[in-house]
Amino acid sequence: MKRFAFLLVVVGTLAGVVASLALASGHAAAPIFGGTLPPGYRDWKLISVAHEEGNLNDIRAILGNDVAIKAYREGKLPFPEGTVIARIAWDYVPSEENNKVFGRAQSFVPGPAPDWYLQFMVKDSKKYAATGGWGYAQFNKDGKPADEAKLKTCFPCHEPIKARDFVFTRYAP
Amino acid sequence: MKRFAFLLVVVGTLAGVVASLALASGHAAAPIFGGTLPPGYRDWKLISVAHEEGNLNDIRAILGNDVAIKAYREGKLPFPEGTVIARIAWDYVPSEENNKVFGRAQSFVPGPAPDWYLQFMVKDSKKYAATGGWGYAQFNKDGKPADEAKLKTCFPCHEPIKARDFVFTRYAP
Repeated sequence: MKRFAFLLVVVGTLAGVVASLALASGHAAAPIFGGTLPPGYRDWKLISVAHEEGNLNDIRAILGNDVAIKAYREGKLPFPEGTVIARIAWDYVPSEENNKVFGRAQSFVPGPAPDWYLQFMVKDSKKYAATGGWGYAQFNKDGKPADEAKLKTCFPCHEPIKARDFVFTRYAP
Repeated sequence: MKRFAFLLVVVGTLAGVVASLALASGHAAAPIFGGTLPPGYRDWKLISVAHEEGNLNDIRAILGNDVAIKAYREGKLPFPEGTVIARIAWDYVPSEENNKVFGRAQSFVPGPAPDWYLQFMVKDSKKYAATGGWGYAQFNKDGKPADEAKLKTCFPCHEPIKARDFVFTRYAP
């Protein structure tokens, strides 16, 4: 067991070094996660939920990797390196089947995926120093990443919430 | 590794048998989970989210234990024995801090916990045969379980959705 665990650590560390070298030599604006979805994000723990009205008109869940959840629960700010926050949004639609049972229009649930289906914030203070230490990514329902022009609109919107390390979502207990 | 995994399976199975015996010998109307919160539910994976208008006026997350998540992802109905579905509800409140950034009232987030903060459905076809094979539980923010009269209102409301094994929530991908 111990030898196996040690091997894992060594391999993990080497992989990290290789990845860091690759990142350091790459262009600063390279897409986070190499333009693919971070594996397993749909299994992450829940941070909170929200409804956005207006043009977005979506209902959303905010999930976090283990680093994110630990920091949230301990109230730790700024978020540690390696924090990843995932935001899943669905069109905000009435549930006809629920409302039929309740006898009134009361229940709103997730519908189809909008263009801004998946968004991620990744904490890497060095790599993303120009945007408050966070990298931003967006994917549509087909896993296609948003283009660079789109992603440039992320940080200006998050900038006013600098006092909470640029993160809007609070933890819902 | 293998021996350790085997031991875990054996211990897990024995624990299950002991728990089943304890349940079988208990009174049918005994509160599920023995009137206490199921440990670790806040770490469970996300099934979906919803907003209920009207008297409830809450925003909610629906989580599932591993049995529930597997069944949902495989589209399996009825839900297998041991399925537990958790519903966390928070008062539906506007986020002043988010809205200040957006320049308009657009963002709604979880507020304080209402009386119906936590609800659970537990699948045990024998124990809860009288209520479609599901036991129901509710807890307030202090972990206090709802009284029996309150819990008797659960099943009549879920009964119309029998075709989906009495479960309203669909999985949000």
